[in-house]
Amino acid sequence: MSKDSNKPHAMQPEDTPELRALYRGFEENHLNPLWTQTANLMPPHPKPEAVAHIWEWEKLYELAKRSGDLVPVGRGGERRAIGLANPGLGGRAYISPTLWAAVQYLGPRENAPEHRHAQNAFRFVLEGEGVWTVVDGDPIHMSRGDLLLTPGWQFHGHQNISDKPMAWLDGLDIPFSQQMDVGFFEFGADQVSNLETPESSRGERLWAHPGLRPLSGLDDTVSSPIGAYRWANTDRALREQLALEDEGFSATVSPGHAALRFTNPTTGGDVMPTIRCQFHRLRAGAKTLPRRDVGSSVFQVFDGAGSVVFNGQRHNINVGDIFVVPSWIEWTVATDLGVDLFHFSDAPIMEKLNFYR
Amino acid sequence: MSKDSNKPHAMQPEDTPELRALYRGFEENHLNPLWTQTANLMPPHPKPEAVAHIWEWEKLYELAKRSGDLVPVGRGGERRAIGLANPGLGGRAYISPTLWAAVQYLGPRENAPEHRHAQNAFRFVLEGEGVWTVVDGDPIHMSRGDLLLTPGWQFHGHQNISDKPMAWLDGLDIPFSQQMDVGFFEFGADQVSNLETPESSRGERLWAHPGLRPLSGLDDTVSSPIGAYRWANTDRALREQLALEDEGFSATVSPGHAALRFTNPTTGGDVMPTIRCQFHRLRAGAKTLPRRDVGSSVFQVFDGAGSVVFNGQRHNINVGDIFVVPSWIEWTVATDLGVDLFHFSDAPIMEKLNFYR
Amino acid sequence: MSKDSNKPHAMQPEDTPELRALYRGFEENHLNPLWTQTANLMPPHPKPEAVAHIWEWEKLYELAKRSGDLVPVGRGGERRAIGLANPGLGGRAYISPTLWAAVQYLGPRENAPEHRHAQNAFRFVLEGEGVWTVVDGDPIHMSRGDLLLTPGWQFHGHQNISDKPMAWLDGLDIPFSQQMDVGFFEFGADQVSNLETPESSRGERLWAHPGLRPLSGLDDTVSSPIGAYRWANTDRALREQLALEDEGFSATVSPGHAALRFTNPTTGGDVMPTIRCQFHRLRAGAKTLPRRDVGSSVFQVFDGAGSVVFNGQRHNINVGDIFVVPSWIEWTVATDLGVDLFHFSDAPIMEKLNFYR
Amino acid sequence: MSKDSNKPHAMQPEDTPELRALYRGFEENHLNPLWTQTANLMPPHPKPEAVAHIWEWEKLYELAKRSGDLVPVGRGGERRAIGLANPGLGGRAYISPTLWAAVQYLGPRENAPEHRHAQNAFRFVLEGEGVWTVVDGDPIHMSRGDLLLTPGWQFHGHQNISDKPMAWLDGLDIPFSQQMDVGFFEFGADQVSNLETPESSRGERLWAHPGLRPLSGLDDTVSSPIGAYRWANTDRALREQLALEDEGFSATVSPGHAALRFTNPTTGGDVMPTIRCQFHRLRAGAKTLPRRDVGSSVFQVFDGAGSVVFNGQRHNINVGDIFVVPSWIEWTVATDLGVDLFHFSDAPIMEKLNFYR
Repeated sequence: MSKDSNKPHAMQPEDTPELRALYRGFEENHLNPLWTQTANLMPPHPKPEAVAHIWEWEKLYELAKRSGDLVPVGRGGERRAIGLANPGLGGRAYISPTLWAAVQYLGPRENAPEHRHAQNAFRFVLEGEGVWTVVDGDPIHMSRGDLLLTPGWQFHGHQNISDKPMAWLDGLDIPFSQQMDVGFFEFGADQVSNLETPESSRGERLWAHPGLRPLSGLDDTVSSPIGAYRWANTDRALREQLALEDEGFSATVSPGHAALRFTNPTTGGDVMPTIRCQFHRLRAGAKTLPRRDVGSSVFQVFDGAGSVVFNGQRHNINVGDIFVVPSWIEWTVATDLGVDLFHFSDAPIMEKLNFYR
Repeated sequence: MSKDSNKPHAMQPEDTPELRALYRGFEENHLNPLWTQTANLMPPHPKPEAVAHIWEWEKLYELAKRSGDLVPVGRGGERRAIGLANPGLGGRAYISPTLWAAVQYLGPRENAPEHRHAQNAFRFVLEGEGVWTVVDGDPIHMSRGDLLLTPGWQFHGHQNISDKPMAWLDGLDIPFSQQMDVGFFEFGADQVSNLETPESSRGERLWAHPGLRPLSGLDDTVSSPIGAYRWANTDRALREQLALEDEGFSATVSPGHAALRFTNPTTGGDVMPTIRCQFHRLRAGAKTLPRRDVGSSVFQVFDGAGSVVFNGQRHNINVGDIFVVPSWIEWTVATDLGVDLFHFSDAPIMEKLNFYR
Repeated sequence: MSKDSNKPHAMQPEDTPELRALYRGFEENHLNPLWTQTANLMPPHPKPEAVAHIWEWEKLYELAKRSGDLVPVGRGGERRAIGLANPGLGGRAYISPTLWAAVQYLGPRENAPEHRHAQNAFRFVLEGEGVWTVVDGDPIHMSRGDLLLTPGWQFHGHQNISDKPMAWLDGLDIPFSQQMDVGFFEFGADQVSNLETPESSRGERLWAHPGLRPLSGLDDTVSSPIGAYRWANTDRALREQLALEDEGFSATVSPGHAALRFTNPTTGGDVMPTIRCQFHRLRAGAKTLPRRDVGSSVFQVFDGAGSVVFNGQRHNINVGDIFVVPSWIEWTVATDLGVDLFHFSDAPIMEKLNFYR
Repeated sequence: MSKDSNKPHAMQPEDTPELRALYRGFEENHLNPLWTQTANLMPPHPKPEAVAHIWEWEKLYELAKRSGDLVPVGRGGERRAIGLANPGLGGRAYISPTLWAAVQYLGPRENAPEHRHAQNAFRFVLEGEGVWTVVDGDPIHMSRGDLLLTPGWQFHGHQNISDKPMAWLDGLDIPFSQQMDVGFFEFGADQVSNLETPESSRGERLWAHPGLRPLSGLDDTVSSPIGAYRWANTDRALREQLALEDEGFSATVSPGHAALRFTNPTTGGDVMPTIRCQFHRLRAGAKTLPRRDVGSSVFQVFDGAGSVVFNGQRHNINVGDIFVVPSWIEWTVATDLGVDLFHFSDAPIMEKLNFYR
């Protein structure tokens, strides 16, 4: 339709006083005819307003640090988090129609108060040490490469016990929940409720053993009971895939492209009901197969460097850079020296509602 | 937060040149700080922009009829469908953030061309006869009280073989698919592809037998293979519920309130992945228990009359009237003489993504 | 192994005093070496002790009638049911290793007391009228062609209110439950607990509407809540399949072979956790495709006549005849004038445990 | 019924010539009346012929070793495996009606040929080193405390590369498959197909990372893709449960009783369709809550010592001892100094077929 169609628009009647009266009647009665808007409402394929875009880490981090100097963290604003606003979405802090991505910054000895919300959240740590996120009373240490979960309706706060600031990536389903009217929110303790700083969280100690399920936890859970996916495990799993490929076995997604999905051990499914988290490693000289999906994806370069192509244009990407790929946009990543990419998306929404292709 | 909170907004720093520079930096780099917008992004409970609203059938039908006189149906505009635009949603033809509801009008001997789309659709018939909707080549007769399905990506068109116009309710997930960028669309035949006018569709003949599944159809389907849910069956099921209640057995939802869900016989689940269809019958003097849900519902009075209360205000409802109840708005329907209500909602979305409460 | 193998049995050591001492040690300690029994324990494919066999209705009915004269029905023996004992299974009333099939006979005005058991049961009615089976207090009328369910742990009894005897087919999973030690049993009322004789049971009135689910019944059930699958529906569904085939549409399993599965409307799956019930109709001149399955099947000719081939031998089958097909035996049914076959099997066991091929 | 019932056996008619003729008629026609056998067929609760029994490791091992001297391993007998024959089951090598348990013994430098079967199998290693089991070409090192899987229809053989013999526990569903006629069997290579002896199998390298799923393995599998569950992980998970209990958190099944289930990471469910594998650790002074289940369980003491009570009798258990608990027999384990128990059962069968209570 529209540009994609040469069909005559048969339903555009002549402009007459009667037609104007009819259209006025529509307006007065909160009605809106399909025939004046079909092409926008029902495009031949997804035509997102959101655009593919890259945020450079250097600039992100610089602004986050400046915020640390100028803006105190605390109740009301809740978090010193700076949302990435997709240039196509009119200034709202939506990186895509479904996803929120932000850089959160916590200064030395700072403390972000506890709250909970129906929205699902995670943190992914590019660098730094010394922060514990406390999720439903369980203190979870945050280190480079770790993925930390805060599934919907679990109380959480953060504390920095070190003398250095720390910054990380926050991912949530805020745009989805805001547009679909599903959000709930509650304040919790003004300070994190548990000041202990153990190396391992209780969730990990109970659940992060490969293929082993505690008999005290036989009921499946909607979100993963593993609060922290540690970098050492992620890195080892990726290394093994590439080593198996070297030995001639099928283990990677495509040549030189190792990849894994973070999953809920009670079901084997995604870590949270709306957000998929994955990790990709490309060996030197490799590139991903071009693909496009219904739904949107966000990537952060964790290590190495390379380039991403969307809409036929190549862009360099370096450590910390974050980029978004909206629905049905084709993308490819390539690298000369190797690159590690953290990846999250709204694929669980698309798959469960059968819009995935 | 905001009105719901008396907490100080700790994160509103003093307005200084440095802060202004920071905010300018945010803007230039497509960033948006959380602390300036938390209350809107994360309300204590869903605060929909959509409002509860009633459209009177008399006016709807009058305007649909006028459209029949003035606007030819055909390729491009595709359908003579008049969308109900929620007064809170800025004039877009969204009855809620997820759902589309429209009155479609087909004049004597008219024909609506075939197309298909990823969006899921149904028709519910308030009155009239003589139209066949053809879904993937299967002609489906439309009569008063029938629910007809057009699940995503099935070709469909309509033809009116009578000398009278016919109008019905169309329901789709267009707002969801448009906002979430999941829509696909394709033109089909300019005329419906099958001009036969059987009383029963092939889908019904194969599938609409209680608890009986053809051995040629053992694979579960995403949407119901029953293309038409006939009024005679719906009516009988509701009558039996009330009769069982009269005989002292548990069969209704609450006293005097019979209700059923239209389901996919291959799974027992909803008829389509995003839309739930139900039917309610209140006997004379009954009323529904007050309830509020995450997600939005649309109702059409099929028979009888009564009143609906939302936000503490009572409104009369009569045959054909359509009303919408947005997320987390409490509603109750009561009736003196009995009322039949068709009901559709986005509950499958909310349940599958675990936002339902 | 065994006949299928020419391999030397390498593990048959010489008979020495030491070996005898070893084997004696095994025996004394309740041990049994694999190497003396592999071929039987692990055959190349299922080699059932059960054999394919046909029971003629004429003889079955005659003996059932004689039992009616000689054996009173009542507490302790519980049912005047005559089990079909597979000739290969040593005289036990097992028609196969998993299934029980019996002809039950209830004289004029007789009453079979209530009990319940973990075993799943159904009745299928070849002929007769006047008996009500009462399942958890719900009286269910039994008529020719009806399938009546008594899922595990539901109280049930029968009463004959007519002046004529009635006989029907009982199917249960007794052999499975006895061999696998899963059975529980409890006595109930000595007379059926509800003496009403309605035409329709409450289960049907609430549930037997195509694709319509009561909102009072949204929790899935392990077994079907439809207590009675009526012949009129079964017959109509089969007729429609053949009519659709005549019109050129895909509806049958193979040419001239209509077939359906009785299902649980809450899931679309089998009516009970261990037993599958199906119905086949072959039009005049048709035959089924040869097939063999892991697991056993029992068939009763409901109408018409034909022949069945197993192990390369053809046998005539007439109304009422019952035959069993054990695991991995190939079978084909053919008919000159048309035949209707009721069919039950243990396929749910095989599928759920992944032994199905 | 029977002892549990005082009800008169109303259906035992007087012994007359007519009755004898009737019973003769039954016999000639392969029929068997229910009323002569109800109590056995349908007991008030499971009354297994299998009995609870303990096999002492010392004797088991001694006999296994003797077999190593006297019986060569090879094609035909296939395995030097000595089945534990439940004393109640008539000498067949069934430890219960569903399960097979055997001690398998492989001498220095011996090799057990490859084969595959529909039956599901695992090995659990009490002691020893130097054997690799090769499953579908993947060599899997076997060490003390490891659980190794051989799911149905995967080729497998074993080789001992050391100069010492090795013995371990084999568990299969042979009795179920034999009685239910579901078994298939095929010979493979006479020598194991892969002579490499890596420390980690390919299945582990791809799959044994907590909560991490390879993108090359997104299809769920019926059985676990982790071929080896290593003792170091099992031990750590159990230690953490007890440590969490010490710290005051809910992590154990009951006080002092840590326990875990081995699971399929693609689903969170059991490792194989018919067999559940679990591990229990009781701290010094602890005991399990008494329980009884529908279905049978087999335990092997892995470490420590204690006692088990069944049928009101206490029995000492020491390292290596194996005991079986048939259906509906109550059992409790207690320990003064602590005990580790490997445990397998047929619970997946009972749960999937809804016989579990």
